[in-house]
Amino acid sequence: MAEVRTGAAIVAQSGGPTPVINASLLGVIEEASKHSQISALYGARFGINGIIHEDFVDLLAQSKSTLDGLNYTPSSALGTSRHEVQRADLQRVLDVFRAHDVRYFFYNGGNGSMGTADEIARMAADSSYELNVIGIPKTIDNDLMLTDHTPGYPSTAHFFACAVRDIGADNLALPGQVEIIEVLGRNAGWIVGATALAREQENDAPHLIYFPEEPLPLDRLLADVDRVFRKLNRCVVAVCEGQLDEHGEPYGADVRRGSRGSLAMNLGHRLAILVSERLNIRARSEKPGLLGRSSAAFILKHDWHEAQECGRAAVRAAVAGNGGNMISLLREKTSEYRVQTGEVPLRDVALLEKVVPAALRSDHDVTPEFLAYAGPLIGSVRHYPQFEPVSVPKRISPKLESHQ
Amino acid sequence: MAEVRTGAAIVAQSGGPTPVINASLLGVIEEASKHSQISALYGARFGINGIIHEDFVDLLAQSKSTLDGLNYTPSSALGTSRHEVQRADLQRVLDVFRAHDVRYFFYNGGNGSMGTADEIARMAADSSYELNVIGIPKTIDNDLMLTDHTPGYPSTAHFFACAVRDIGADNLALPGQVEIIEVLGRNAGWIVGATALAREQENDAPHLIYFPEEPLPLDRLLADVDRVFRKLNRCVVAVCEGQLDEHGEPYGADVRRGSRGSLAMNLGHRLAILVSERLNIRARSEKPGLLGRSSAAFILKHDWHEAQECGRAAVRAAVAGNGGNMISLLREKTSEYRVQTGEVPLRDVALLEKVVPAALRSDHDVTPEFLAYAGPLIGSVRHYPQFEPVSVPKRISPKLESHQ
Repeated sequence: MAEVRTGAAIVAQSGGPTPVINASLLGVIEEASKHSQISALYGARFGINGIIHEDFVDLLAQSKSTLDGLNYTPSSALGTSRHEVQRADLQRVLDVFRAHDVRYFFYNGGNGSMGTADEIARMAADSSYELNVIGIPKTIDNDLMLTDHTPGYPSTAHFFACAVRDIGADNLALPGQVEIIEVLGRNAGWIVGATALAREQENDAPHLIYFPEEPLPLDRLLADVDRVFRKLNRCVVAVCEGQLDEHGEPYGADVRRGSRGSLAMNLGHRLAILVSERLNIRARSEKPGLLGRSSAAFILKHDWHEAQECGRAAVRAAVAGNGGNMISLLREKTSEYRVQTGEVPLRDVALLEKVVPAALRSDHDVTPEFLAYAGPLIGSVRHYPQFEPVSVPKRISPKLESHQ
Repeated sequence: MAEVRTGAAIVAQSGGPTPVINASLLGVIEEASKHSQISALYGARFGINGIIHEDFVDLLAQSKSTLDGLNYTPSSALGTSRHEVQRADLQRVLDVFRAHDVRYFFYNGGNGSMGTADEIARMAADSSYELNVIGIPKTIDNDLMLTDHTPGYPSTAHFFACAVRDIGADNLALPGQVEIIEVLGRNAGWIVGATALAREQENDAPHLIYFPEEPLPLDRLLADVDRVFRKLNRCVVAVCEGQLDEHGEPYGADVRRGSRGSLAMNLGHRLAILVSERLNIRARSEKPGLLGRSSAAFILKHDWHEAQECGRAAVRAAVAGNGGNMISLLREKTSEYRVQTGEVPLRDVALLEKVVPAALRSDHDVTPEFLAYAGPLIGSVRHYPQFEPVSVPKRISPKLESHQ
C-alpha cells in the first residue's frame, strides 16, 4: 500500500439525483471517519459549483439523527448540478483544493462526471499536487462501462416495473384502450427493458417494449399496437422518453431542449394521439417522469446497500493511494445474486456510454438474456391474483348485439 | 327489521378503478357468506355489462388463496365499466335479476353509478319485484355527497402527496427549474389540495396549489410562478388535469375527448411550455396519471379497512331490508380519527358532485380548514432531513460572478 498524505477530503454529487445517491454519501462519511489520513470531510453543495464557490458542509460534524434520517432518503442531500465544467473551472477546483489542503476527492456521478474526475486527477498530477480522486458510480440509466450495473438503476427499474404492473391492472379492469407509458431513458433502454419483469402470465402488461437503441418507425409501432389490441382489447406500451422514429425525430412531439438534453417533452402523449388518430382506438399516456428516480417507496434494499458499499470502497481505495480509479460492481458467478466492489481506471469509463447490446433486445420485447441480466438486480414484482373463472350458467337469451 | 326474501345477490364494480375497490368486494363476500337470506353471490364481470350479458363469476366458490391474494390488490378484480346506461339496459338488468332470482344488488361506484342504482331500485319497485339495492361508495375524486369521504380518496391523495414530496426533493437537489405536477381530478380539487400534506417546513413543495373549482387565468399562474422562482430558484406547482383558464379552456393543451370526459391530454406539459416561453425559466412536467389510482405501494391501511367495512355494511343493510340506500362514512367528533358507517338515500347522492367548498381553498393554496379535514384522512408523510448547515470558512477570494 502506497504511503498517502494526510489531508482533507471532499465529496460531491453530480448529475441527476437517484433514489440511492445518499447511500453512497453515507458510506463515504462512515468509512472516512475510520481513517486517520482523512483529517476532515466536506460535502460540496450542488456538485462542482460547491467546490468552485467553497460552499461546503462539514460532514463529520453532522448529528447522528441527521445521518440516520438520511437512510432510505432519495434525491441528493448535498444538492447536485448539471453545470458543464470548463477548463477554468478545473483550475479553480485545484486552487480550492490547495487552499483547504484537500488530498481526497470523491465524485459521485455518471460517465460525464467520471470524465471530469479524470481531468482533475490528471491536472493535479501535472502540477505535482498529491491528490487521490476516486469516482463513485451513479446513474439510473445504467449506462456506465466496466461495472455490472450502476447504483440507482435497480430501484428506478423497480419503480417502472411496478408502474407497468399497476397501470396494466387498471387497463385490464377497464379495457378498450391503449396505454402508453413513457419511461425514463434517452439513449439506453435498460430501464424500459426491465418493465418486462412486470409480467407473470401470458398477456400480462407490458405488451410492447421498445428500445431507444433502435429507431422505431411509426408504422411499425401502429401495426404492433393494432395486433395486440385486436387480440386483447387492451394494450400497454412501454417506451423511452428518448425514442426516435426512422427519421431520427420524436414523432412530432413537442420537445424543448435545455443545455443538456431535452427538458419539457411529451413523447408518450404524442404517441397516444397518433394511435388514437391513425387506429381509431382510445389511447392515453402516463409519464411518471422524475418520480421514477425520486420515489422513496421503491428503493430496493440491496441497491441501497450496494450504493453504500461503493461509498465505503471509494474511501478505502483513496487511502490505499489508488487515485484515478472508479469503484465498480462485479457480479459473482454464483446461483445466488452476490456482488463485490472492484476498481477500474476512470479514463476507461469516462464519457463512454453502455447501451443495451443487440442480443438483449428483440423487435418489440426483451430477450431471455435481458431477463437473466436484470431479473436478479430488480427481483420479483408481486403479482395480483385473478378470480377463478367459476362462471354461472346463463338463464335467458343473449342480449342483442348492440350491447356486446 | 323487515322480513326479506331469500335469493341470490349480485355485486358489480363501476367507473374508474381505485386502489381499494377490491376491499369493498372482499367485505361483501365475507359478510354475504354469513347471512342465510343470501343463497348465492355472483360478481358481474366489467360492471353493468356483466349483468346485461349474464357474465358472472361465482364469488362464494373462490378459493381462500385467491381471496387472500386480493388483499391489498389495487384496481378492479371483477373488471369495471364506463358504459353509459340506457333505459333499455335497465329493463334487461331487471330481466336478468328475475331469471336468477336476484334479490340483492350491491353497486360499488361514484355518483353516476348511484343514479343508476337508484333507477334500478325504482323500476323494481314499480313492477313489484322485491329487490334490495345498496350503493357502496367508491371514487378517488372524493366528490360524493353525504359521506365524510369516499374510499379510495385517501390512498390516491397519499400517492400524490408523496409524489409532490419526492419530486420536490429532486427539484431542491437540482434547482433552477419549475416542475409542473399534473394531478388526477377534473372538477373537484380534493386530491390536488391534499398535496399540501407534503410540506413540513416553509418553502417545502408544493409551492403553488390550484383548485379546478376556480378558473386560473394564465397571467396569474405566470405571476405566481415568477414570484416563487425569484425567491427560491425552484418551484413545484400542483395542478389538476381538469384545470381551466379564464376562458374555460385548457390553456391550448392538446385534449382529446372520449365518450365520458377527456382521454389523452397534456395539460401539465402545456403549462410547462408556457412557463418556459413566457418567463424564460426551465420548466418540465410530470404526469403520474392513472398510476395514482392503481399503485399498490401507496394503499393506506385505514382506507382499505374502511372500504372493506363499507362492503360489509352494505350486506347488513340489504338483509335488513334497507334497499335504496348508499353506505356512508361518518367521522366521529373525537380527537383521534375514527369513522363509522351510516346509510343515506341513493336519491340524495345520485348524480350530485361535492366540490371543495370556498372556505377550504385560497388563491393558490389550501386553508387550515382543508388541512383539518384532509390531514387525519391521509396521515403524515415521512419527511426527509437536510444536512445541518455546519459550513466551512472560505479560504480564498470569491470566484468571479460568471460562475454564480
